[in-house]
Amino acid sequence: MKESDSEREMISIGRSVVRPDVPDKLLGRAIYAADAMRQGMLHVATARSSVAGMKNIQIDISAAQNMPGVQRVITAKDIPGNKYVPLIVSDMPFLASEQIRFYGEPVALVVARTRQEAKSAARAVQVTGEMFDPVLTVEDSAGPDSYVIYEGDYEKNIFKKYHIQRGSPDEFWPESHVVIEREYRTPHQEHAYLETQGMIAELDENGEVQVMGSMQCPFYVQDAVASILGLAKAKVTVIQMVTGGGFGGKEDVSSVVAGHAALAAALTDSPVSLIYDREEDFIAMSKRHPSVIKIKIGANREGLLTAAEIYITLDGGAYSTLSPVVLWRSTVHAAGPYRWQALRIKSRVVATNTAPNGAFRGFGEPQSVFALESAIDELADQLNIDPLTFREKNVIASSSDITATGQTTVNPSILEALEKVAEKIEWKDKFTGAYTGVVRHDIEPIRGLGCSVSFYGVGLGAEGKKLDRAGAFVQVESDASVRVFIGNTEIGQGARGVMAQIASETLAAPLEYIHIHRADTSRVPDSGPTVASRTTIMSGNAVMNACQTIRQSLETSAAMVLNCAIDNIKTDQRGYYDAANPSTAVSFHEVVSVATAQRQQMSSSGWYVAPDTSFDSAGAGQGNAYSTYVWSANIVEIEIDPGTLQVKALKIASAHDIGRAINPREVCGQIEGGVLQGLGFALTEKVAYSGLTPSIQSVPDGIMLNPGFSGYICPTAMDIPEIFPIILETPYEHGPYGARGIGEPPLIGVAPAVANAVSNALGIRIRELPLCPEQILNELIKQGRL
Amino acid sequence: MKESDSEREMISIGRSVVRPDVPDKLLGRAIYAADAMRQGMLHVATARSSVAGMKNIQIDISAAQNMPGVQRVITAKDIPGNKYVPLIVSDMPFLASEQIRFYGEPVALVVARTRQEAKSAARAVQVTGEMFDPVLTVEDSAGPDSYVIYEGDYEKNIFKKYHIQRGSPDEFWPESHVVIEREYRTPHQEHAYLETQGMIAELDENGEVQVMGSMQCPFYVQDAVASILGLAKAKVTVIQMVTGGGFGGKEDVSSVVAGHAALAAALTDSPVSLIYDREEDFIAMSKRHPSVIKIKIGANREGLLTAAEIYITLDGGAYSTLSPVVLWRSTVHAAGPYRWQALRIKSRVVATNTAPNGAFRGFGEPQSVFALESAIDELADQLNIDPLTFREKNVIASSSDITATGQTTVNPSILEALEKVAEKIEWKDKFTGAYTGVVRHDIEPIRGLGCSVSFYGVGLGAEGKKLDRAGAFVQVESDASVRVFIGNTEIGQGARGVMAQIASETLAAPLEYIHIHRADTSRVPDSGPTVASRTTIMSGNAVMNACQTIRQSLETSAAMVLNCAIDNIKTDQRGYYDAANPSTAVSFHEVVSVATAQRQQMSSSGWYVAPDTSFDSAGAGQGNAYSTYVWSANIVEIEIDPGTLQVKALKIASAHDIGRAINPREVCGQIEGGVLQGLGFALTEKVAYSGLTPSIQSVPDGIMLNPGFSGYICPTAMDIPEIFPIILETPYEHGPYGARGIGEPPLIGVAPAVANAVSNALGIRIRELPLCPEQILNELIKQGRL
Repeated sequence: MKESDSEREMISIGRSVVRPDVPDKLLGRAIYAADAMRQGMLHVATARSSVAGMKNIQIDISAAQNMPGVQRVITAKDIPGNKYVPLIVSDMPFLASEQIRFYGEPVALVVARTRQEAKSAARAVQVTGEMFDPVLTVEDSAGPDSYVIYEGDYEKNIFKKYHIQRGSPDEFWPESHVVIEREYRTPHQEHAYLETQGMIAELDENGEVQVMGSMQCPFYVQDAVASILGLAKAKVTVIQMVTGGGFGGKEDVSSVVAGHAALAAALTDSPVSLIYDREEDFIAMSKRHPSVIKIKIGANREGLLTAAEIYITLDGGAYSTLSPVVLWRSTVHAAGPYRWQALRIKSRVVATNTAPNGAFRGFGEPQSVFALESAIDELADQLNIDPLTFREKNVIASSSDITATGQTTVNPSILEALEKVAEKIEWKDKFTGAYTGVVRHDIEPIRGLGCSVSFYGVGLGAEGKKLDRAGAFVQVESDASVRVFIGNTEIGQGARGVMAQIASETLAAPLEYIHIHRADTSRVPDSGPTVASRTTIMSGNAVMNACQTIRQSLETSAAMVLNCAIDNIKTDQRGYYDAANPSTAVSFHEVVSVATAQRQQMSSSGWYVAPDTSFDSAGAGQGNAYSTYVWSANIVEIEIDPGTLQVKALKIASAHDIGRAINPREVCGQIEGGVLQGLGFALTEKVAYSGLTPSIQSVPDGIMLNPGFSGYICPTAMDIPEIFPIILETPYEHGPYGARGIGEPPLIGVAPAVANAVSNALGIRIRELPLCPEQILNELIKQGRL
Repeated sequence: MKESDSEREMISIGRSVVRPDVPDKLLGRAIYAADAMRQGMLHVATARSSVAGMKNIQIDISAAQNMPGVQRVITAKDIPGNKYVPLIVSDMPFLASEQIRFYGEPVALVVARTRQEAKSAARAVQVTGEMFDPVLTVEDSAGPDSYVIYEGDYEKNIFKKYHIQRGSPDEFWPESHVVIEREYRTPHQEHAYLETQGMIAELDENGEVQVMGSMQCPFYVQDAVASILGLAKAKVTVIQMVTGGGFGGKEDVSSVVAGHAALAAALTDSPVSLIYDREEDFIAMSKRHPSVIKIKIGANREGLLTAAEIYITLDGGAYSTLSPVVLWRSTVHAAGPYRWQALRIKSRVVATNTAPNGAFRGFGEPQSVFALESAIDELADQLNIDPLTFREKNVIASSSDITATGQTTVNPSILEALEKVAEKIEWKDKFTGAYTGVVRHDIEPIRGLGCSVSFYGVGLGAEGKKLDRAGAFVQVESDASVRVFIGNTEIGQGARGVMAQIASETLAAPLEYIHIHRADTSRVPDSGPTVASRTTIMSGNAVMNACQTIRQSLETSAAMVLNCAIDNIKTDQRGYYDAANPSTAVSFHEVVSVATAQRQQMSSSGWYVAPDTSFDSAGAGQGNAYSTYVWSANIVEIEIDPGTLQVKALKIASAHDIGRAINPREVCGQIEGGVLQGLGFALTEKVAYSGLTPSIQSVPDGIMLNPGFSGYICPTAMDIPEIFPIILETPYEHGPYGARGIGEPPLIGVAPAVANAVSNALGIRIRELPLCPEQILNELIKQGRL
């Protein structure tokens, strides 16, 4: 590209084109893992623990082996390779053989002729041993008598700690006009993807293993499969099938499903299918980490923030998995996009006897943003300043302002975001004081407004930088159709469409010529996980890199056809033309024909490495944590039913500076989806465990009580408010065509905005999610307002 | 590579390692197309014409449609895309709809639940129309009353003509001491690959078509499938399965099989299997072109060749297919590796009503070499010079000697090849005059010696240069295992092993780390066909190119580990080391680990374009026809049974200068196989047609009479002589590690050496292949020696 993007009309970038993955999904033609059939395919079911804590276990598979249709029952001792799932710390066994650490932990695999036979036999696997009292809360985890779930670099049951210190907050407390100290809590949230976990595994004609299925991170899966089977990675190919949602819930945990499927295929020398039903998916798969966050913040008489002290505790569940990096993102973003004169953040993630918690859209940040943005409102309230104005006075607003880790940023645009959402919801006109009277069922519904701001470091950041690179492979066929392979996955977020648009733009090829293929580990190098809103930047840049190489060949051929210097070649919708004679253009198809005849190389392996980042985890936690940030603001208008105390969101304006919207309609779709998932986190979603939640069932502690959509309440189409997605576009210099990412930011600020709106409506502060009627009821009773 | 190859010990090149494809084949684990099963797979059979010539045809499928298990019967009108097979001239329909031009021509496809049902129903398809007298010989083809099979750029029924002229031969005839004029003939030869044609076609989850099966040229197949279905090439993936031999017989014709299978899959929306049985494979698939070659050559009193006039006519069969380029190779090599003062070669390939003839190991050259090398012996005989000595005096021997097209070559080594084979067979001691007495069954077996020389232009040469490029894709995984993809196929010649050795050497990786994958059109750009002994040079250079790019990354990392300049990095079996401190080396595995952590790019798309070649086909046929040549010599010792007149080869020495033997044992295997296939061509193989061959069956003309191994006689293990493969290694500057190729040369010179040995044994000259007892009997009778 010689001309700057702004000088010319774009071919595909910035257009709201139809995503390539959509027609098959809408028409029911998409083939998911559960739809896949293979000649001679067997079915696998997972035998799971029915208790949350047991040691010295014995696994009796004899009954299961004799059940109808059973071909093989597999336990840990049958694993030819590594018995532990490869991750940051490999503490989680593929199949438990010594202890049970959570309800639903896998102990054996049953391979049978039909899925029903496999599932029946799985229930016949007997586990015996010594039961112990499971640890169910973060407070219990540290208790002196609690069971030792994890021993590592820190105290008992602590997976990871982080620490950020800038200046000395203690010096600021005396001089602050107002200081508040509060504690906030959030529960487990379930990903609730439409498609449950599922994998197909088979051995190909070369004795190589191929695993296909529902996943976010094929390279993690490849690691896991090579590891459990003890195979070279070049003999393990992992292919993503059409995937019905992920949200982080198919990041690391799909490695377990795939490892199990591959093991079953290898041991039976048959293709196998392993599909989770909804109940086991709820029970055994990861959730959003519950959190307990203590915040102390202050402001001076002018309403300017002084200092912050934040203590984060996340519940990591039974194994370490991704908890260290979830904690890191939570920590780095915990002080928000504010100017603090001093701050201290301490964080830890602890072990409990619940299913391992892991990645979930926002990755630890929704918890800390809920806490901070609630506290900011509480502080504004104490200062008697409009919370929007308070934020305007304190947010990072110039390239000299620094984040918690001391990082300066280019063009932070949060003020603009705040302005846009305030304008859309008419904050200045509508924001008034809370209703403070008695809440009776016969009064009018009570409305309130709440706002929040947040920032979001795109990509893996300093603690994940070894993985922050991506590859692509692009091949232009002689008929000018173009194959594009990327290492990141389409999980419903629209990645394939965005990559097609980037390839089209860079090659100057009509969009319909571009064919984006499913992710396949054998076609591109390890491109890291499909998480952290990183796909547009990482795979997008890798695709651009590959296309630019091919474009050089095409420009050479175009220059020959047009009889001009290569440097003079430009492109537009028509194809390639000579800048000195712009009226004549040769089509992409024609240029490809010429280049093919000239034996030009028209395939390229693209590569992109994220800019360097830093974080001194051994020191004060300072550094350039992420290479770029999305800046966000939300305003929500709610209505509370005085009879049921149910909170209903009416309108949400959600603004995000994403650098460049490759496909504006899809960006809006991501914002709408994120907002709705944030509303579920805010209002209704919570996993219930026996021992923590009152239950009429008589069961041991640590059993999940609501593993399904009748007990676990997600927002439905009926709950969708009027959503106003607002896209800001301050180009990111290293982004493809200026783009950052949008996957996670829209969820992050919703819950505190809702909590702030509840406070604005009723003058009560709920500090624990979800903001369900019971909590509002309890608070109103406490205040004597019912 | 900074050090020259000769300075260091090679890691993998030049070692006789076990080929990676061999264990599965030996152990019966290899999955061929006929073994492949798919869920819901249907079976396809081809309905074929039972006559050789019919016009205005009507195809009645009603009976077939009502046969048990039949799902669909497909004719030409059902084809959604192009109805003709894409090739040089696209004159051959995928399914005949107007005329029948050869016995066995496909007219319809039957798709049924089982193969047996499909085959039964295919026999029920009725074809009616006006029969005409099929053209069966090249002489008939040009006849004034013959049926018009083809009309193109030349006279009736001529597919292609070539013409080479250097100097004026006519000027040399008067001054020549001896001039001979002779005519030589060769028959159809059947490829007799172990595995018949077979394809699996299916639609994948993205509506894309995948065709897998037995083939040499996946990119031709991709063209054909995209063409017949009217799809973009990026939506057609072609994958080669384990292939049981090709020899040219799976070059272009597999496109028809694949097109049929893909059409059936698309129209039934089911996976389909299309497997030929041996009889239909014999009847319908291509053969070696029969030839009639007239030669006039002369020599002066000193035994030096003067001039040559050569007229080649090849029988192309019913459609053009590859005949133009087969004719070109035949023409360019027709004057042999000799110094001629003047020459004229005229050639043409004509149409007949037999199955289209096509590629077969040697690609037109065995015919012209049989003619020329027989004539050279006849001339030596007339001059009364030892035929070996005669060749020594006349072959191209220096870099100033020119070929028929006026091309000079680097280090032509044919004299050395002749010397080696003469030494091995002890020619000087053993060569004596012919037995000229009466041949009676009770005399001793009669022995004879014959020699031949030939040269072979490696690759596609000037007439195929647009296709003479190749790609590769190499990806090094984080565990140091290496994936290598190439665009050429393993058809039993050992390509995969050679590519693994080249990748191992270039990356300095242990050979067992290299995993060569099956050819897949979606992974590498069009690399041209797997023919013309071009794979080692073309794919080998592409693999080297990709590996060299990755090696740069690895050298950077190695230099960091070893704390030395990148330019100082060298490699040997141990891995990477500092030339200034050679005692310490880091293993490939370790260097890859470091490079992975450094986020180095470790995948690369390799590319290679063959050096430029030229041929002025519109002028005198001069130019640099091929970029390099293999130089070959053979001596065969035979024994003739005086009772049966059967010729038995006892010893064959076969020497070839291939530049460099990547895997010497496999080169010897290629030589042994080529020699044996050449012996079949020399002694026993011939396809018989009614109307040409006496038959007791009463059938119309043009029916193949021996479609199977009981009637068509190939050499068996019992017929293998003692073979002495001799490898000469004059490095080729553009070859990977100096290599040229070896696939085709070993067959080419065998038949004339055998014919010359028969002449040496009995003093009779047989000018038509095969040299079967009947021909010897006739000649002996003619001479009154029985």
